[in-house]
Amino acid sequence: MTIGIGLLGLGTVGAGVAGILATPSGRHPLVGELALRRVAVRDLARPRPVELAAELLTTDPEAVVDDPAVDIVVEVMGGLEPARSLILRAIAAGKPVVTANKAVIARYGEEIAAAAAAQGVYVLIEAAVGGGIPIIEPLKQSLGANRIQRVSGIINGTTNYILSRMAAEGAAYADVLADAQRLGYAEADPAADVQGGDAADKIAILASLAYGGNVPRAAIPTEGIDRLDARDVAYAAQLGYVVKLLAVAQAMPGSPAVPSAQAEQLLDVRVHPTLLPKAHPLAGVNGVNNAILVEGDPVGQVMFYGPGAGAGPTASAVVADILNIAGIRQATGNGTNAPLDPLLAAGSWRPCRLVDSAVTSHRNYVRLRTSDRAGVIGAIGTCFGEAGVSIQSIVQFETQSAGDAEIVVITHEVCEANFRQALAAIEALADVQAVAACLRTL
Amino acid sequence: MTIGIGLLGLGTVGAGVAGILATPSGRHPLVGELALRRVAVRDLARPRPVELAAELLTTDPEAVVDDPAVDIVVEVMGGLEPARSLILRAIAAGKPVVTANKAVIARYGEEIAAAAAAQGVYVLIEAAVGGGIPIIEPLKQSLGANRIQRVSGIINGTTNYILSRMAAEGAAYADVLADAQRLGYAEADPAADVQGGDAADKIAILASLAYGGNVPRAAIPTEGIDRLDARDVAYAAQLGYVVKLLAVAQAMPGSPAVPSAQAEQLLDVRVHPTLLPKAHPLAGVNGVNNAILVEGDPVGQVMFYGPGAGAGPTASAVVADILNIAGIRQATGNGTNAPLDPLLAAGSWRPCRLVDSAVTSHRNYVRLRTSDRAGVIGAIGTCFGEAGVSIQSIVQFETQSAGDAEIVVITHEVCEANFRQALAAIEALADVQAVAACLRTL
Repeated sequence: MTIGIGLLGLGTVGAGVAGILATPSGRHPLVGELALRRVAVRDLARPRPVELAAELLTTDPEAVVDDPAVDIVVEVMGGLEPARSLILRAIAAGKPVVTANKAVIARYGEEIAAAAAAQGVYVLIEAAVGGGIPIIEPLKQSLGANRIQRVSGIINGTTNYILSRMAAEGAAYADVLADAQRLGYAEADPAADVQGGDAADKIAILASLAYGGNVPRAAIPTEGIDRLDARDVAYAAQLGYVVKLLAVAQAMPGSPAVPSAQAEQLLDVRVHPTLLPKAHPLAGVNGVNNAILVEGDPVGQVMFYGPGAGAGPTASAVVADILNIAGIRQATGNGTNAPLDPLLAAGSWRPCRLVDSAVTSHRNYVRLRTSDRAGVIGAIGTCFGEAGVSIQSIVQFETQSAGDAEIVVITHEVCEANFRQALAAIEALADVQAVAACLRTL
Repeated sequence: MTIGIGLLGLGTVGAGVAGILATPSGRHPLVGELALRRVAVRDLARPRPVELAAELLTTDPEAVVDDPAVDIVVEVMGGLEPARSLILRAIAAGKPVVTANKAVIARYGEEIAAAAAAQGVYVLIEAAVGGGIPIIEPLKQSLGANRIQRVSGIINGTTNYILSRMAAEGAAYADVLADAQRLGYAEADPAADVQGGDAADKIAILASLAYGGNVPRAAIPTEGIDRLDARDVAYAAQLGYVVKLLAVAQAMPGSPAVPSAQAEQLLDVRVHPTLLPKAHPLAGVNGVNNAILVEGDPVGQVMFYGPGAGAGPTASAVVADILNIAGIRQATGNGTNAPLDPLLAAGSWRPCRLVDSAVTSHRNYVRLRTSDRAGVIGAIGTCFGEAGVSIQSIVQFETQSAGDAEIVVITHEVCEANFRQALAAIEALADVQAVAACLRTL
């Protein structure tokens, strides 16, 4: 039975989806049952990489949603509006939605999920995180037996490309960014990528699936790579680490002070440049590739790796979602009033709350600019010790300016509040000119 | 609504499953709706790692299958019989089956799938390949938009443990095997692992899912690591490669000589020790870990990595399958006559056929024992050239016996028939004592 697809947007991803639907041979036979019925574009006259009959195209996206021949609405236009409104309009019409729009899902996921649950329709989002990497479906359908301890990932290809080149070439951030923009790996306005916002969108989505509750996007502490100094990448390498922009969501032990909140999951969710030991599974992920490491009990560590962006990979994920909706329609006799599969629908099942970062614990990398005088390392070590921060290593690096020194400290896993207290004491030392860099370490 | 689980087998995996079902808190809420109703064991008196009420246990596995309180039958007993018969018995009773039994699925998958399709029940097998790594579900539910070009994997943990240690320590195969047996990483009878049979079972299963057709297990060319010489591991390392036992399933271009067989998929499926360039995504997979690389159009390369065996990871996969069945039961109103979701059921949709290996093309590594005389390399090069085999490198390695040389040749990608022809000519050379080793290269 043919299933009508309505496409909102015909950019690179939309064209990729249309291309797959137009060439079903050799793909899963369900692809052959999908028919593109209507496509919303901004400009009818623009030349396109795929040939589509002119009568399929319209500049009115609501007409696509409302078209009775459209059974599934595929939103690949991007941006917050009108994408959000169109998704809600489709849901209200009882039509399942497939979207690649991480920004909308990270911000309006709760509203959209509530509307979808009320209407009994699926909203699938495999393409929103990790491009072509299957990660949403595995989190929903393959790891439910686990208590998830941590989800950590390299989920922004632009920054990983920049960091890979900074590490390989010893190049400065600004130079590599300019080159990446020239080559099309970074956008003209790179803020969402390099400041970590895109990764924060994505980890909000992954965390909400892994932990079964809505994660407030706006509350995620987010630090990008735009202030990363090439010298920290180089020092990290000398100490056996690589620097990656990591997005992390981690379960915290429940607070015994709040016995009534037993079912609540406390989470430490954050995005920041991070030192990874060279042997860590994520350390070898280079270029525009993405990878997500899921740690759970009893599965242990599983990792998903692949192209994090691009028309082909993203279209593969979008069509996978369409196929899943088509598949379950067959299982439920194409009935529109069938109950939802709770795994595929992935409704929220417990409240999640972000903890104050002061109570979290991490390993840290700190670079200090100091006078090159005997006793400085002792004074710094004392500040850490008095704050209860135990240290793994203190190394002095050579600098070009005489009389100055650079000291790099790597701590053991310590409480953030204690660490901040130690840093304040260190900044007050006469021989310490500046805390020049402060990065998290795995 | 509670769903009754019947467990066939209470070994390490069965105990892991029972442990998850007994501790639902913090897992997906559907786990709390699963109730263990009956467990078949071999010996009632044996002490077990999980505490179960005595009345749950029976030594009669058919009683578990037949128990009306059992809605889903979970086969984790292993072995071909009675596992196969019990799976078929459950299907005949209209009960969905979850199994971790790669040997049964690789050999009787077609029979079991036909019975399951006729009865309209699911037989899910996530735990049969890759332990805790989600790979079966992603192949079925996340990659259907793709034309799969190749599935290649390190899917036997025992051999990967042995190879990792051989590479790290320069140790001999027999020594590492003995140590692995002592440490519990290899079985007392290691044949199924080290001769490649286990990996062949698993690639037969992955290929049948990736390509949508039954793959004849018995026809898969299979070579293990039991005759691998430590010196080839060392030479490979010097040339920039690591040796892994790789299982590969690769699509071949259709034969224009058989126009009526357009829908047939020709496959090159095989298991053999393989040289991987050190930068290859699978090259860094060490110890008992597994990883599967899927290459498709348009997704590109995606990789799935994690623990390939063990009670916890395997139980995670088994319970994932149970949850998927429970989820779709909710979506279909618990009706037993609902049609199957074609993605989850993963029926076969085209005939697949293995090609004669003579027509396949590969890169090769060859080690020759020769006289240490001028002109030998020239003569060898001439033999390859006359057979149309182009060479990437010829390197002479030092040997301990005076007058002898060891020459390692790495070819470009060449037709297997041409390569065999060249080898025959080389073996006939007076200065060539033996073709000492012959391995595939990526």
